[in-house]
Amino acid sequence: MLQASETAAVVSSEFDLIRRYFCRPTPQAVLGPGDDCALLAPTAATELAISTDMLVEGTHFLAGTDPCQLGWKALAVNLSDLAAMGATPRWALLAGSLPEARAAWLESFSSGLFRCATRYGVDLVGGDLTRGPLNLCFTVLGELPAGSALRRDRAVPGDDLWVSGQPGLAALGLAQLQGKTSLPEVLGQRCLAALHCPRPRLELGLELRRRRLAHAAIDVSDGLLADLEHILERSAVAAEVFVAQLPCLPAGADPLLARQCQLAGGDDYELVFSAPPAKRSELAALAAELDLPLWRFGRVVDAALDRLTLLDGDGQRLPMDGKGFDHFG
Amino acid sequence: MLQASETAAVVSSEFDLIRRYFCRPTPQAVLGPGDDCALLAPTAATELAISTDMLVEGTHFLAGTDPCQLGWKALAVNLSDLAAMGATPRWALLAGSLPEARAAWLESFSSGLFRCATRYGVDLVGGDLTRGPLNLCFTVLGELPAGSALRRDRAVPGDDLWVSGQPGLAALGLAQLQGKTSLPEVLGQRCLAALHCPRPRLELGLELRRRRLAHAAIDVSDGLLADLEHILERSAVAAEVFVAQLPCLPAGADPLLARQCQLAGGDDYELVFSAPPAKRSELAALAAELDLPLWRFGRVVDAALDRLTLLDGDGQRLPMDGKGFDHFG
Repeated sequence: MLQASETAAVVSSEFDLIRRYFCRPTPQAVLGPGDDCALLAPTAATELAISTDMLVEGTHFLAGTDPCQLGWKALAVNLSDLAAMGATPRWALLAGSLPEARAAWLESFSSGLFRCATRYGVDLVGGDLTRGPLNLCFTVLGELPAGSALRRDRAVPGDDLWVSGQPGLAALGLAQLQGKTSLPEVLGQRCLAALHCPRPRLELGLELRRRRLAHAAIDVSDGLLADLEHILERSAVAAEVFVAQLPCLPAGADPLLARQCQLAGGDDYELVFSAPPAKRSELAALAAELDLPLWRFGRVVDAALDRLTLLDGDGQRLPMDGKGFDHFG
Repeated sequence: MLQASETAAVVSSEFDLIRRYFCRPTPQAVLGPGDDCALLAPTAATELAISTDMLVEGTHFLAGTDPCQLGWKALAVNLSDLAAMGATPRWALLAGSLPEARAAWLESFSSGLFRCATRYGVDLVGGDLTRGPLNLCFTVLGELPAGSALRRDRAVPGDDLWVSGQPGLAALGLAQLQGKTSLPEVLGQRCLAALHCPRPRLELGLELRRRRLAHAAIDVSDGLLADLEHILERSAVAAEVFVAQLPCLPAGADPLLARQCQLAGGDDYELVFSAPPAKRSELAALAAELDLPLWRFGRVVDAALDRLTLLDGDGQRLPMDGKGFDHFG
């Protein structure tokens, strides 16, 4: 991951490193980095949404990943969890272990990280740096009015199922990187951008929550069907998925692979949500407003033996296989 | 770390693992594990103290460490950061990467973790489990009345310097484990207990804050002098340390090693704090009340070229060497 020419630029102290690369003003905190804890003053009458996610080299990203992209992505995928609850992002903490402290790598990583933090209005208020195999663990905090969160357990039979954007691109990009497919150049670039530089759907989550458009939501980190199943399980319902209503597959990709990536590929960070049919026109208006396609691809039904049924354009059942990514599956 | 006989008991799914080993009731949360985020309702008019710490196998603990002790310790060292601010612990999140998911290891680790959580009144509200080199990252949150936190940057010249308990025992225990010294049996057990089962000084921190006894505080994770230096640096002051006033060295240990461990050994999680001389009798009363010795071992002076001066019983300067542990030093 690091160039031989950088070997001279090893920075010496954990505390210097934090000061140099990870301390920026934190106007949203009472006290930022540099003490035993950060101090935060939550807004009155709000709830805090909090999430932590660990990214491990070799499991979540390949050795040699560009550190600037990695800095963006590691924070972005955490913010995606706030998006899925409809929370306004406020604060983040980073704990990381690094095999060594290389100035160029740290410079680049922190620039990507702060680009993402600035874009989404987050203060990095604290953290920890230590030596070890490359591992990045963010904790993010957002706020939302008490009782208003988009939860996984609130889908009800009759709800439409929606997904944003173009799920599957990130997995196609990974397949390209791994030499498992050969995409046309422009599509390849688009898929790699989806993989390396995901955009957490914070505006979408916020508006779904504010306008009370959705009953339940989740972000697609493990795969569209796998993540949908979490909603179904927590809400004790089942779903029918109309494959023909999913986003068109990207032209130029192998259709079988592209469909597999769309249904079971992880790392997209689109939102899947359930919403009452009465909200269809408001959702169409929101999609136009955010310039983000929203696809109505299924519906919630009463709990059944098969939690998930895939149907083709003629209403015929389709067989199912691998549904997503499980780290210990 | 794992027995061969356990190889059959590999648990299959990340989600099953979390459900099975890390989901307990979370009465202090609006929403606990199982959604994209946990939801918390902070108490009105309080500030949140939040901290994250990563423990890496081979850096912070030895391969083969008893998983039950590890579960306790990984949470306890995080809670120690709340103790150093005087915060009341409320919630914790755990992100971990594990080389593999062994039932016996997870059972034991989670039992240690929840023993600590129960002892200190913390709800485990969320987290993440993934595959990778063994790495445990806790985030802890506590509450305290706005403006009342014990911060590192509030020491003033004239303050006494205090430390709780018996700093150095954990480092002696580590030296014993590493075969660098041979301690008498009872002392050895005491030192290993200090190393494996640290007690975060939450009651002490809380009372220092409530009774307004301390100006500045920090917990000793990297070494007494190294951590004291953080207070001095953040408060822009210097200190004189009276070595003869430090706790008596434990009988039976090599005095040179024991002194070095006391001054520069990490992993003790005692509190170092500065307090006005007017509070000496109240502090003595508090020590008796908590059944925890408090040692007045130095004083804060105006900023000087030497931030830290060590003095022997006759007021003579002592030479200084290694002051603690820095992960990239």
